Amino acid sequence: MVIKSKDNPKIKQLAKLISSKKERLNSGNFVIEGIKLLGEALAENAEVLAVFASSSAIEKYSSVLTLAQNACEFYEITDDIAKKVSDAKSPQGVFAIVTSSYNGLDAFGDTDDKILVLNNISDPGNLGTLLRTADAVGISSVVLCENCCEVYNPKVVRSTMGSIFRLKIICEESFKSISGWFNANDVKSFAAVVNMQAESLTQIEFPDRCAIVIGNEGNGLSERDISLCDRRLTIEMKGNTESLNASVAAAIIMWEMTK
Amino acid sequence: MVIKSKDNPKIKQLAKLISSKKERLNSGNFVIEGIKLLGEALAENAEVLAVFASSSAIEKYSSVLTLAQNACEFYEITDDIAKKVSDAKSPQGVFAIVTSSYNGLDAFGDTDDKILVLNNISDPGNLGTLLRTADAVGISSVVLCENCCEVYNPKVVRSTMGSIFRLKIICEESFKSISGWFNANDVKSFAAVVNMQAESLTQIEFPDRCAIVIGNEGNGLSERDISLCDRRLTIEMKGNTESLNASVAAAIIMWEMTK
Repeated sequence: MVIKSKDNPKIKQLAKLISSKKERLNSGNFVIEGIKLLGEALAENAEVLAVFASSSAIEKYSSVLTLAQNACEFYEITDDIAKKVSDAKSPQGVFAIVTSSYNGLDAFGDTDDKILVLNNISDPGNLGTLLRTADAVGISSVVLCENCCEVYNPKVVRSTMGSIFRLKIICEESFKSISGWFNANDVKSFAAVVNMQAESLTQIEFPDRCAIVIGNEGNGLSERDISLCDRRLTIEMKGNTESLNASVAAAIIMWEMTK
Repeated sequence: MVIKSKDNPKIKQLAKLISSKKERLNSGNFVIEGIKLLGEALAENAEVLAVFASSSAIEKYSSVLTLAQNACEFYEITDDIAKKVSDAKSPQGVFAIVTSSYNGLDAFGDTDDKILVLNNISDPGNLGTLLRTADAVGISSVVLCENCCEVYNPKVVRSTMGSIFRLKIICEESFKSISGWFNANDVKSFAAVVNMQAESLTQIEFPDRCAIVIGNEGNGLSERDISLCDRRLTIEMKGNTESLNASVAAAIIMWEMTK
């Protein structure tokens, strides 16, 4: 049976999960769009609850979608519904509802020796790029705090390019609790700041267990949160630029921390 | 006299320079928006031809705008016109027409020892971020080739955060001519590729005079352009990510090349 109406309750639920943060938080689910993300979700054993694919998509992406058909609820939808529900510029007609995986501080393990803390990052595209970069350089635990943008926002999910299924995402509202956990567990924390008085990135030898704390794109870290960190680091600029783009600065720091 | 009509020829010219690439290329001018960019343009001695400021902006940013009034043509406009002309989310009511500064290969000097080549970069935001990063790490010459996005596109200009006034921008359509110049002038070129057979970035000692060549966000460099480079380099990934975001990858490479 092909779902032909956007008033079908399953489609209404899908659309609501895409558009509403509240719905995502209440249900504990989120939506991924596109065949590549679905392939990554299945490969990484994410909990895929339901897949929706347009008639054209089923023809085009038969191998991944056959896998999906055997793994979870599966609904065929019309190309027209796919276009209406889509959040993408060129919709592929593939959507899936996936269980979100929020962890608390108790999810930290002894092997989490390099940690990224994102403190009040506000732009979904930046957040996605930061998660993708962390995954690429080998950081496996990321902590979100202090009103960070929601990690299961569709734009964040898309920008991670699948990294979201490989990372351990830890959410804890207050950075103070996180820094308390770091102190108790001998994780040295570094505040990334734009301040020539701070230690220069090129001079730092990162300890075995450490965390890098990145603040808001426009305003950086609050004075309070900087003071909660063990050390402050900065990237020395050679031009007259005041600062690097937040994702770029964080990428360079993560690169140095893990290489 | 305050300009009150958007049909005023000066306003029409301003609006056309913002919206039309053809107009920018024909006139040799482009537009900057915002008080910070204007301040940078004046500080870096860019050729500012005319400034347009709304009545509220004149009150708010009097120090920079007084400088501008003494340096070039100056027009007061209504807040309403400022809003209509603006390309920004929260318009500050400050615009300036600036002479663009395109250079050919003959602009390379002997001191250009670290060069960034952008080959077919298509996204304006990425291009702006790449220029800002180059400036921050101390690369002063950037070459654009092979249908790179126009450097004076308003979104590029905004993303550079002023770096556009400090960099030497060289435009040359064909990468073949550029690689010819590199060969004749003993500049070693490195193609950035996603290929585990290439040299790993962590293993490379960059020679004194070298250029890093970055390709299109989606498709990378063409086989032909890779073969025109002296060496190929890659960033080894630790996660399962296929690749880093183009601006992030280029930033990490520029960082290693200049530190």
